[in-house]
Amino acid sequence: MRIYDIIEKKRDGYELTDEEIEFFVRGYTNAQIEDYCASALLMAIFFRGMNSRETATLTRAICLSGDTVDLSMFGDNTVDKHSTGGVGDKTTLIVAPIVASLGCSVAKMSGRGLGHTGGTVDKLESITGFRTSLPTGDILAQVEKIGVCVVGQSGNLAPADKKIYALRDLTATVDNVSLIASSIMGKKLAAGAKSIVLDVKCGSGAFMKNEKDAELLATEMVEIGRRNSRNTVALITDMDTPLGNCIGNRIEVEEAMKVLKNELHGELRDLCVELSANMVSVCKKIGIPEAKKLAEESLASKKAFEKFLEWISCQGGDVGFLLSDDFSKALYEFDVVGKSQGYISKTNTEKIGKAACILGAGRTELGGKIDFTAGIRMHKKRGDHLKKGEKIATLYSSTTSDFSQAAQLFSKALEISTEKPAPTPLIYKTVR
Amino acid sequence: MRIYDIIEKKRDGYELTDEEIEFFVRGYTNAQIEDYCASALLMAIFFRGMNSRETATLTRAICLSGDTVDLSMFGDNTVDKHSTGGVGDKTTLIVAPIVASLGCSVAKMSGRGLGHTGGTVDKLESITGFRTSLPTGDILAQVEKIGVCVVGQSGNLAPADKKIYALRDLTATVDNVSLIASSIMGKKLAAGAKSIVLDVKCGSGAFMKNEKDAELLATEMVEIGRRNSRNTVALITDMDTPLGNCIGNRIEVEEAMKVLKNELHGELRDLCVELSANMVSVCKKIGIPEAKKLAEESLASKKAFEKFLEWISCQGGDVGFLLSDDFSKALYEFDVVGKSQGYISKTNTEKIGKAACILGAGRTELGGKIDFTAGIRMHKKRGDHLKKGEKIATLYSSTTSDFSQAAQLFSKALEISTEKPAPTPLIYKTVR
Repeated sequence: MRIYDIIEKKRDGYELTDEEIEFFVRGYTNAQIEDYCASALLMAIFFRGMNSRETATLTRAICLSGDTVDLSMFGDNTVDKHSTGGVGDKTTLIVAPIVASLGCSVAKMSGRGLGHTGGTVDKLESITGFRTSLPTGDILAQVEKIGVCVVGQSGNLAPADKKIYALRDLTATVDNVSLIASSIMGKKLAAGAKSIVLDVKCGSGAFMKNEKDAELLATEMVEIGRRNSRNTVALITDMDTPLGNCIGNRIEVEEAMKVLKNELHGELRDLCVELSANMVSVCKKIGIPEAKKLAEESLASKKAFEKFLEWISCQGGDVGFLLSDDFSKALYEFDVVGKSQGYISKTNTEKIGKAACILGAGRTELGGKIDFTAGIRMHKKRGDHLKKGEKIATLYSSTTSDFSQAAQLFSKALEISTEKPAPTPLIYKTVR
Repeated sequence: MRIYDIIEKKRDGYELTDEEIEFFVRGYTNAQIEDYCASALLMAIFFRGMNSRETATLTRAICLSGDTVDLSMFGDNTVDKHSTGGVGDKTTLIVAPIVASLGCSVAKMSGRGLGHTGGTVDKLESITGFRTSLPTGDILAQVEKIGVCVVGQSGNLAPADKKIYALRDLTATVDNVSLIASSIMGKKLAAGAKSIVLDVKCGSGAFMKNEKDAELLATEMVEIGRRNSRNTVALITDMDTPLGNCIGNRIEVEEAMKVLKNELHGELRDLCVELSANMVSVCKKIGIPEAKKLAEESLASKKAFEKFLEWISCQGGDVGFLLSDDFSKALYEFDVVGKSQGYISKTNTEKIGKAACILGAGRTELGGKIDFTAGIRMHKKRGDHLKKGEKIATLYSSTTSDFSQAAQLFSKALEISTEKPAPTPLIYKTVR
């Protein structure tokens, strides 16, 4: 088999065989196939696409390129959740304890954030003492004991994805649905859960800017799951405005706790209930209404919150400090006020994420340090009415230097209109 | 300027600016742009194409990536000819002395053959003593003195083409008309002639298998010439059957001499007269009929043959041996005879070229040694009637080992039919 023939075949619009796709992934991971051949093939895939069989095979090959986590000791009880990423997305902190409190097993690997705000792992690390790097044996033991463990992605999970993604990022071959889907699902398959619930974000703060693209990606990922014997569901959800009111790390942990304590209602709670219900439903093979009722009960009875505290404590987090008033206190804060009167009709969510990043809530380079107390608390959101001089948001940081730049970017991210905007759905669609 | 943005722009179907194309060619030649970025861009160009302006700019950038030959001392009198390559193509050996005998200046760089049979440089080197590597000063002095000099391509002519072509060859991005045209014309522009006549071969023995593709390439190359102030004409000519009856090196030199001595008529002579007439016409700004008459007179008066001998001698060739009966004599020969009766209706010219290569007339690897006496003399060609047992061709070689394999391949290249095939034109079209 020669990589030249594989490039030519895809270039000319033919389907690749499973053997050809596996040959490429194996050869490229082992550096037997050159970067320039891989980038030519990726560009040909960009133009010609891949069908579902090819995409599922590519994903499996990516999964098998490195370590895989064996969760078979938990039977079919394991469930994972993945979000394609957005601003203010703290759902993992909420849904993991909910579903664990309902008897599902969550052994999850999460990512760090690059750009915008921190990832789930960063938010967890903002809790003093919390360990995000554990030996596999400890992870399994913790899941066995309390039903939940969330750690950072291990070094040798899906190395093919790391290498292919880095090349795509340099050669303008990121934007292809099969390549995006295989990159996400390759890691999910390797992480070992039997059931997978995908939260495909859609809107100005998401990778997928419109519903059509989001649905395409969701469908592709669900099909990959199906072809690899995983129960997979995808929810296409709104990311045209930040999720919840807090963007940052510690303030997001605090907001998540409010939901878990059943003290906060609204879109963030609604989405978490939906996601939890879908996770419990696929995992326990029960209907959505029943699963939803269980999730609501877990929140109302504080069982989810107890599970959360047990989880944080189990991974070394300082629960006393977490529950204290000092936890999210930033050294400095700065209020952004309205310059005109009207309704907030549109939010450029990516810009808001960037403003939070400027404050220190995210990284601008790989390995950069995060200011855990930095962030944005929005007092007004899309659809809210605003008076001139009224407080829209409070910005937090450990330094004062970047407030004006962040405030300017934040203000630019809002569109004010005389008419109240029509509400947008929180969940556009469920793909099974 | 970033190569990433250039890849993305072409990927999305936009025109590249002159600056962007020059940035790519310069950066890639200087190894500031990585192979994997270049191959991704080339694949994007494969899918999106380039318009005439982009193609001409790419060609000029390739030309300017290395040494260029300054022929301005010869005014507008310089003319070059380029063939896209075929089997039995010895036209340069004939047209160069014809047009030089008519006062045109030919300072030509020719290629070596790889695969099939030798290139013009190999055929010239089959003449004992002939030097194909000369200092530029000597080349110019010889052209000044006798009007013609043909050498091998110098090391630093269009280095960008060498690098880009090598990458295309490994990444399945050869087959694109803009890339093919710029590769050929980049070297032609660098070689310095004011007028260029292109012989675009078309058929089973050519790179372009059909007339449509050949015309596309011809049109693109003529346009490149026009946009770079060269008088350029392209003839689309038949390569569905070998050109002339001889395929090899010394036997092709001998066949060329027969035309120059005005002893051989037929397609080879006809094509050489057409090419010469076009060269003289663009160079001297006279009409084709007048130029054709001059070419015919040069052959009839033996002036072309005298110029040929003067040329060979001037570059060190042993004319005495060249004119002797021993010149093309091979150690072994083998007759291929007809196995059935009928008309030769089709010839797979590429297969015939490969058969000659097996005998030793061509190279199978870069730097491989050529057997100058090896080759094939066809006694019957397309359209001829054949009786069972009648001699079709004689194979020549310095060794006997490969005769059966070559004979088998040669026989497979012929299709025998009960009906006489319709004649095909020698020249399909002229593109100006």
